[in-house]
Amino acid sequence: MKVVYSEDHRLHFPQGELYGGEFVTPFERPSRVEYILRELKKRKMDDLMAPARLDMKPVAKVHDRGFLEFLESAWREWTEAGFRGEIIPTGFAARGMRAKKPNHIDGKVGYYILSMETCITAGTWEAALSSAAVAQTAQKLVSSGASSAFALCRPPGHHAHHDMYGGYCFLNNAAIAAQGFRDAGAKRVAILDVDFHHGNGTQDIFYARNDVLFCSLHGQPEDAFPYFLGYRDEKGTGKGEGFNINYPMPPGAKYDVWGKALKAALGQIKRFKPDALVVSLGVDTFKDDPISFFKLTSEDFRTYGATIAKAKLPTLFVMEGGYAVEAIGINTVNVLDGFLNG
Amino acid sequence: MKVVYSEDHRLHFPQGELYGGEFVTPFERPSRVEYILRELKKRKMDDLMAPARLDMKPVAKVHDRGFLEFLESAWREWTEAGFRGEIIPTGFAARGMRAKKPNHIDGKVGYYILSMETCITAGTWEAALSSAAVAQTAQKLVSSGASSAFALCRPPGHHAHHDMYGGYCFLNNAAIAAQGFRDAGAKRVAILDVDFHHGNGTQDIFYARNDVLFCSLHGQPEDAFPYFLGYRDEKGTGKGEGFNINYPMPPGAKYDVWGKALKAALGQIKRFKPDALVVSLGVDTFKDDPISFFKLTSEDFRTYGATIAKAKLPTLFVMEGGYAVEAIGINTVNVLDGFLNG
Ligand SMILES: [Zn+2]
Ligand SMILES: [Zn+2]
Repeated sequence: MKVVYSEDHRLHFPQGELYGGEFVTPFERPSRVEYILRELKKRKMDDLMAPARLDMKPVAKVHDRGFLEFLESAWREWTEAGFRGEIIPTGFAARGMRAKKPNHIDGKVGYYILSMETCITAGTWEAALSSAAVAQTAQKLVSSGASSAFALCRPPGHHAHHDMYGGYCFLNNAAIAAQGFRDAGAKRVAILDVDFHHGNGTQDIFYARNDVLFCSLHGQPEDAFPYFLGYRDEKGTGKGEGFNINYPMPPGAKYDVWGKALKAALGQIKRFKPDALVVSLGVDTFKDDPISFFKLTSEDFRTYGATIAKAKLPTLFVMEGGYAVEAIGINTVNVLDGFLNG
Repeated sequence: MKVVYSEDHRLHFPQGELYGGEFVTPFERPSRVEYILRELKKRKMDDLMAPARLDMKPVAKVHDRGFLEFLESAWREWTEAGFRGEIIPTGFAARGMRAKKPNHIDGKVGYYILSMETCITAGTWEAALSSAAVAQTAQKLVSSGASSAFALCRPPGHHAHHDMYGGYCFLNNAAIAAQGFRDAGAKRVAILDVDFHHGNGTQDIFYARNDVLFCSLHGQPEDAFPYFLGYRDEKGTGKGEGFNINYPMPPGAKYDVWGKALKAALGQIKRFKPDALVVSLGVDTFKDDPISFFKLTSEDFRTYGATIAKAKLPTLFVMEGGYAVEAIGINTVNVLDGFLNG
């Protein structure tokens, strides 16, 4: 399996993340990728490949134009306004307030952000572009006949809405890849999101579409970020109704519970008869993850990789979250290994 | 004019305020009150009085019950969750997300907050209660026949919605006082908000009511906090339609512009024939205010105090913002002095 990867992820490394009212070193940090690369090498699965230049056409189909322009110019506008920290806004369009974009950069950030732990810094836009390019290059491998590929994306993407960033995500890499599959001729694409957190951004992007089925397994929103999306009754809208399926699970869920949800999701995907499968691969379902509450073991990751392989679909793995950095390599590569070797 | 005041405002002093992506010493700090007290003493206007115990009935009429319970228990729940900083959430109910209250304290804070510069700390709830008691005690003086009174409130209140806090505000002191006037027999109450910032909270609380007229003079939301409310076309709803009047003004506005808006607002108030007037008195319209963009001089404050007096209404002044601490005393007392002595 080809692994698409770029060093440019390093351009995004904010000094701080807001956590519990303090700045801490970001959980979503460059070393996450190093642990995955190291484990791939160790198992001789490091068939690395650099991304091609990003084709913006699929990006523009899943993201709002004003949002993309904002991400590109935000750091310049912020520093020109004289602010000295990394980008976190004060106000935002809170419940019942108006969703009208202000002119002032602090207000504009408030308009486009969906959670406050995620800083934009000098290199964020370039890193986000490179991460999307990684997903797109891997998608093109699969569109061209590879049975699978691994997009080692960073920053991750699944929390990014068509016009909001947050949850460490800026561009929605999985959505860009799914759109790329469609543009390359796939009639239907399924996205299976196994990250601990609800893929609210991917849900948002495809909520009214019936050509992309979205299934998300995640910590229930009553107790887990992003808190304000991810309920079971979110099923899609208009012609997209029935093409969004959420599997929220309670704190402490082990593989007996999680694996059942996976099988239910794979059943839905089978009925959908997709031409390609995108797996939003977060490994923060691990029992020792510092910010999550599922209890999967490292062996469970191998098991579910093998289970996904049984769908026998052209499959693109897109890296999302996972913050137990010592174990992230083992768990990620266990999924790929299980997928390839059962 | 009686000045109602409590030392308990000191219980609210967060270590930090998010500003430009960094923690800075809060602009809204205890010394603001000291500068006002000092100037009152200097001009022999320090006819001080302690607040009576807060009657919660008017508070419960303008604030949501779950919100009040949240403010009371937030610090305990936050520290019990193991968070070590003061209270700032990660996620919130962003545009297009669901307005459903989560169980987890981080999510619950996200549900009830409207802007991120405002930390809750150990003494916040007690200080907010004392500030509301200050407003209520001063209101009762006016309801009992005093022609005017000054509620030296801190923390301020006008950004607090019926169920959201932010903009340094937790309980809406001016709204609690207006409700107090109604409960004491006033048929109609007018609120004139002269703080630099839009009184989004007061607007929210009375938006569907025709017994309380709300007029706000403020920096236009395209360029000024709270960014997502305060436009001219926000006029009230249902039977409240026509009883909410916004006067947004552009950066750099001086008294020639601001004073015209004041006269227009006073004209509306005169037509409304209120039994009492509440002035949300922020002095961040001052030319040297560090976070605002109007250009009023210290003399302008005296001028507009005298202009408000011409309405010849029983008048309660409720302290809101103002962050040029060296000048806050002079400008605040200039308003009161102009009101009393022309
Ligand atoms: Zn995650
Ligand atoms: Zn203000």
